[in-house]
Amino acid sequence: MRDYASNTDAFDSFSAETIPVIDGIIKAFYESKIKNANRLFMKEIYADISSYCLRKGKRIRPILLLASYNGYKKSAKTRDEMNKAAASLEMMHSFLLIQDDIIDQSATRRGGKAMHIMTADRYNARTRNKNIGADIAVIAADVLFSNALELAAAADICNRARRRFLSVFADTYEMTAWGQILDILNSKPVSLSVKENIPLDISLMKTAYYTVYYPVLMGNILATTGTPSEKEAIEKFAIPLGLAFQIRDDIIGVFGDEKETGKPADSDINERKFTLLIHNTIERLPKKEQDEFTRRFLSTKASDAAYLKKTITSSGALEFAKSKQVSLIDESLSALGKLSISRASRSIFGGFAEKLRL
Amino acid sequence: MRDYASNTDAFDSFSAETIPVIDGIIKAFYESKIKNANRLFMKEIYADISSYCLRKGKRIRPILLLASYNGYKKSAKTRDEMNKAAASLEMMHSFLLIQDDIIDQSATRRGGKAMHIMTADRYNARTRNKNIGADIAVIAADVLFSNALELAAAADICNRARRRFLSVFADTYEMTAWGQILDILNSKPVSLSVKENIPLDISLMKTAYYTVYYPVLMGNILATTGTPSEKEAIEKFAIPLGLAFQIRDDIIGVFGDEKETGKPADSDINERKFTLLIHNTIERLPKKEQDEFTRRFLSTKASDAAYLKKTITSSGALEFAKSKQVSLIDESLSALGKLSISRASRSIFGGFAEKLRL
Repeated sequence: MRDYASNTDAFDSFSAETIPVIDGIIKAFYESKIKNANRLFMKEIYADISSYCLRKGKRIRPILLLASYNGYKKSAKTRDEMNKAAASLEMMHSFLLIQDDIIDQSATRRGGKAMHIMTADRYNARTRNKNIGADIAVIAADVLFSNALELAAAADICNRARRRFLSVFADTYEMTAWGQILDILNSKPVSLSVKENIPLDISLMKTAYYTVYYPVLMGNILATTGTPSEKEAIEKFAIPLGLAFQIRDDIIGVFGDEKETGKPADSDINERKFTLLIHNTIERLPKKEQDEFTRRFLSTKASDAAYLKKTITSSGALEFAKSKQVSLIDESLSALGKLSISRASRSIFGGFAEKLRL
Repeated sequence: MRDYASNTDAFDSFSAETIPVIDGIIKAFYESKIKNANRLFMKEIYADISSYCLRKGKRIRPILLLASYNGYKKSAKTRDEMNKAAASLEMMHSFLLIQDDIIDQSATRRGGKAMHIMTADRYNARTRNKNIGADIAVIAADVLFSNALELAAAADICNRARRRFLSVFADTYEMTAWGQILDILNSKPVSLSVKENIPLDISLMKTAYYTVYYPVLMGNILATTGTPSEKEAIEKFAIPLGLAFQIRDDIIGVFGDEKETGKPADSDINERKFTLLIHNTIERLPKKEQDEFTRRFLSTKASDAAYLKKTITSSGALEFAKSKQVSLIDESLSALGKLSISRASRSIFGGFAEKLRL
């Protein structure tokens, strides 16, 4: 296997070059929308959507899409139209974040207010509807999604590529929605079961497919007609990487340092998020301890947090997660060698994988 | 002007022929989805979405789209692929109804339970999340919308037509979202203003453009390359008709007979819906009575309903609405003569307009 360790630079420099392009498209899109809107409330909401989308973020999905497109394209085709497709994917992501925060009743996102708090602040005094913030935010998210679709439809790409792209765009959206539904069904549960691995399904749908597989596949089917064998190769590269991404997040969510991560320490424990880490802890415990851990996990007592954290470690689940995460990254890097992409894009993907090491 | 009075038959027979085709596409689409889904919760939610979409309804938007397409097409092109586009529009409509009911906290829709009640019934016992019905329904609506997009993307139409169609599809979705936002901003208001005609804006966005203009435009741009002059002609036909449609609804919402309409009598009054009828009533009253009417409209006392109804009549607003509704239908029929469509489609459109007479 090649040593990709030095390639985090390739990813970082491609990111640094791509983020302003994506953000520039979104910014210009909404400047034009604001200018042409003929109602004040439209201008206000466009401005809220624009500032929300443009908050500092990693823009992973458009970056992976474009690295993939560049890696697969045979001709020196211009990338301009692909940037629009990539920006539409970032807009879909913001749409999902708005809905996510409404459902989780989270007040903040990416260092700012959640959209439903922004709309509540703006419109609360106007009606007797106590829920106006969330009501408007749900529909503002629809405006954002229709804008994403508008941008995707406007991109000047050939009919077959457009058809393939929209089909994958719809699949991406649907897969993520299923992950979200499964997540809601298993949040604040009245009982926990480890018979099926529900956190694995959620991680696959909401992260591995959504964040890694589909963006890379989009680049592939925009640049080429796509083949089943390449699709399979992409899956072998993307899915382990996406799972490594999620496991990293899960570990940080329980054991991370707030100063380093920006996330409040113990956040996943306090929210009782049923992650792969929790699932594995329960599996490892003897029956009697299983029941106690489950009971104290399902209780919402803050005083149980220390016990839960301690048990995740003492059960061996934390060590297992760490080593599993490493082997998933290695598995992904090994599959990366089999993708039919350019050397430059391989370095970018490899760099992305290396950055996920804890 | 031709006499279109006899043409309600043309509309009725086109409806009777079209509804089973549209419903058949949606039914087959979800049968295949249910068959291929590999998780129980997916099968359950697909089944809920399918039964929701297939409830008895007028299917006005796909009917207008297809009558328009048939009226504009020059060749004997097969209509099959257009049926998919029309079905995707009906699915978008169901998506919007699901969101509408969540926001209005309505428990029923089209003779059945609202989607958020269906999901609450199914999943309430599973978690401690009291809002799980609405949380799941918001995301189930996303699944439905991604399915609509999938169907639209799958239709075998040429690149330019697809690009135009998706662009209008996105516009339709966005315009309706704006109408919905304006509606939310003006529901349960703390004060009423007749300076701007907000109910007119809402009627234009949520009904005239959404229900009539865009479906007819979609048929036009699927069948032809579309011209600015025909677009304008469609607008002149569609907008008065859409407003007549809304005014009819507004009158029935206050004065309708439950046995005839299926809507509870006085429903719009009890919900204090700020319609064109209310707007016009306030405009017609002398200042002092204006204040009383507004105060009693803003109060939510059921005992004020009789006074409000009486005043809508005594102010002359009801008579005005009725005569305005007639003149809008006549204006639309007159503009219908200028559309470059086939005689058969003209009869269908004319029949639709005639059916809107009170």
